[in-house]
Amino acid sequence: MEDPYEDALAELMINYHELNGSIIDELTEEPSPLEFMRYVARNTPFVVRGAALDWEATKTWTVDYLKTILGDDPVNIAVTPAGNADAPTPYTHSDGTTSLVFAKPHEEEQPFSVFLDYLINQEKQQQQQDTPSEVRYAQTQNDNLRHEYSLLYPQVPRTIPWARVALGAHDADAVNLWIGGTRSVTALHRDNYENVYVQIQGQKHFVLLPPACAAAVNEVELRPGRYRRRGRERGGNGDGMEKRNEEELKLELELELEDGPSVPFAIWDPDKPDVNATKYSHLARPMRVTLNPGDMLYLPCMWYHKVSQSSSPEGVCIAVNYWYDMEFSGALYPLTSFVRTVASKIK
Amino acid sequence: MEDPYEDALAELMINYHELNGSIIDELTEEPSPLEFMRYVARNTPFVVRGAALDWEATKTWTVDYLKTILGDDPVNIAVTPAGNADAPTPYTHSDGTTSLVFAKPHEEEQPFSVFLDYLINQEKQQQQQDTPSEVRYAQTQNDNLRHEYSLLYPQVPRTIPWARVALGAHDADAVNLWIGGTRSVTALHRDNYENVYVQIQGQKHFVLLPPACAAAVNEVELRPGRYRRRGRERGGNGDGMEKRNEEELKLELELELEDGPSVPFAIWDPDKPDVNATKYSHLARPMRVTLNPGDMLYLPCMWYHKVSQSSSPEGVCIAVNYWYDMEFSGALYPLTSFVRTVASKIK
Ligand SMILES: O=C(O)CCC(=O)C(=O)O
Ligand SMILES: O=C(O)CCC(=O)C(=O)O
Repeated sequence: MEDPYEDALAELMINYHELNGSIIDELTEEPSPLEFMRYVARNTPFVVRGAALDWEATKTWTVDYLKTILGDDPVNIAVTPAGNADAPTPYTHSDGTTSLVFAKPHEEEQPFSVFLDYLINQEKQQQQQDTPSEVRYAQTQNDNLRHEYSLLYPQVPRTIPWARVALGAHDADAVNLWIGGTRSVTALHRDNYENVYVQIQGQKHFVLLPPACAAAVNEVELRPGRYRRRGRERGGNGDGMEKRNEEELKLELELELEDGPSVPFAIWDPDKPDVNATKYSHLARPMRVTLNPGDMLYLPCMWYHKVSQSSSPEGVCIAVNYWYDMEFSGALYPLTSFVRTVASKIK
Repeated sequence: MEDPYEDALAELMINYHELNGSIIDELTEEPSPLEFMRYVARNTPFVVRGAALDWEATKTWTVDYLKTILGDDPVNIAVTPAGNADAPTPYTHSDGTTSLVFAKPHEEEQPFSVFLDYLINQEKQQQQQDTPSEVRYAQTQNDNLRHEYSLLYPQVPRTIPWARVALGAHDADAVNLWIGGTRSVTALHRDNYENVYVQIQGQKHFVLLPPACAAAVNEVELRPGRYRRRGRERGGNGDGMEKRNEEELKLELELELEDGPSVPFAIWDPDKPDVNATKYSHLARPMRVTLNPGDMLYLPCMWYHKVSQSSSPEGVCIAVNYWYDMEFSGALYPLTSFVRTVASKIK
């Protein structure tokens, strides 16, 4: 039976793209709070080129400088075999069948300088087509710039003034530092935050899809899993901060199923449009934008985003982002939830 | 077959009301452009009590004053048998069957003073339970305060500054004057405008429903119709401005079908919740607000509104409203269209 609601979802996507295009707005300077609020009202992204070129961070965060400031301070690192932290990943069950799980990274603490050296080396190996054994990414996204990395916080603005004023926020909900390299890719997902994302070193490549395209992304319930270093537990060697020899760090990563509720997650990848597609995926017109050092992106709440990276000449990719609470009252949140609900029922 | 999409529509309405309640926000003073923009972003109404108490209009627009200014100037008046201009109305076909049509009023020009006297008399008869033969309402909503009634325009602000600045508009798209009485009711409908509605004399009683409740209002395609004075055409007496005797004005109004495209229109009335209800109507939580002289309402674009009125002691109900262009790009318009589409397919 031909389902009439299919057409409604298709119509929505076509309608959305007709009214909005898929080229990101480029502002010549940072917006006023009111100008920003118009973008929030439209739930529409923009980029401001070079807006953060004069930040201390943009001017000073060389590898040497960071090592001088942070030295051997312990930092939490996400470790994965292929750069796939928080990503849908095939898992082979004991009976030989395979299914996608939501793979969380192995997390371990290590001295900042060890992490940074690894990252730079990871980048060199990558350039020599010599794939390193594992991929590390500092991506805790738990307000880490005001905690783990608080020594660096004075080198960025405490908050983004026009965003704070517009949103009536006292402060950002979280300020996050991201330090990674070419091999890490953040899989397509959405956050319930208004996001101001600022590139410091290297490049980030964003692929963006509006909430109206929910039917395209093939959101399914995935069992949660997590990478573990094989044999780690057995050793009873739980304290991540003690000095480990290289042998130990190279212990192979193994994906293990976790208990706990399933995770609704997009399994369509706009860069592999034929894999895991829904019948709506071909209607999506992803918006693409690359951030260079000093560029600032407003990524509206509930937009799907996939993020990949290119390293700076020094071999690192560094960004800072500010998450502000989104507005749950009003029309937008219930309406986008409705689209997701209908999309999930069609499948 | 139980249709799963029904639940999605119900969930949307429940979700919306849980997040938003159904009590209108009351502001103690007019908002700044930024504060207003936050309401626009949320697509959420508010009222500012007494905001227009110091307007010239609010202070001076007595019946005598208006007659002095406008005298016998010709004005366009909507005439209906029962106050039902632009309302779903039963029409009896030649074969005896009845169906709802979208009944537009008979329109005629008459001297302003004649109209106002009729209105006041209409109100007196109403108080004496002596139903007058027809109901008149000055409701052209075609920017009439800057044209037909331009002599009165200097007594209201040219524009609402915070709305104009917030919306980046050069000017309001239309500024409308509404002069009516107790018997006129504006049926539940929606407009693609941001609306700032200001009460001058008497009271208006608004019943409001957000776009998320589209499935409740039972929008159907209605054939258009229009009231005509019976026998008018035959007389060849087309010029509304010539002096007519009372006999002629009392010619009975007859509803005639019109050619032209059908009109999608809500046929559910939140004040008669059991008539023409959909299975979702009982989930709607209408927001109700009465405007007194000097009160100002922000009625967001695409909200359904039904409006009834109470006359001032002098027997008139006068209001002014400012329509600003709504934003069609962004998420809101396509998402609300989607809800309407799904709602129409469920029925
Ligand atoms: O930079 C990344 O890898 C991901 C960023 C992200 O997902 C976010 O800022 O919400
Ligand atoms: O005042 C009325 O009768 C109706 C007002 C209205 O529908 C509007 O302002 O859009």
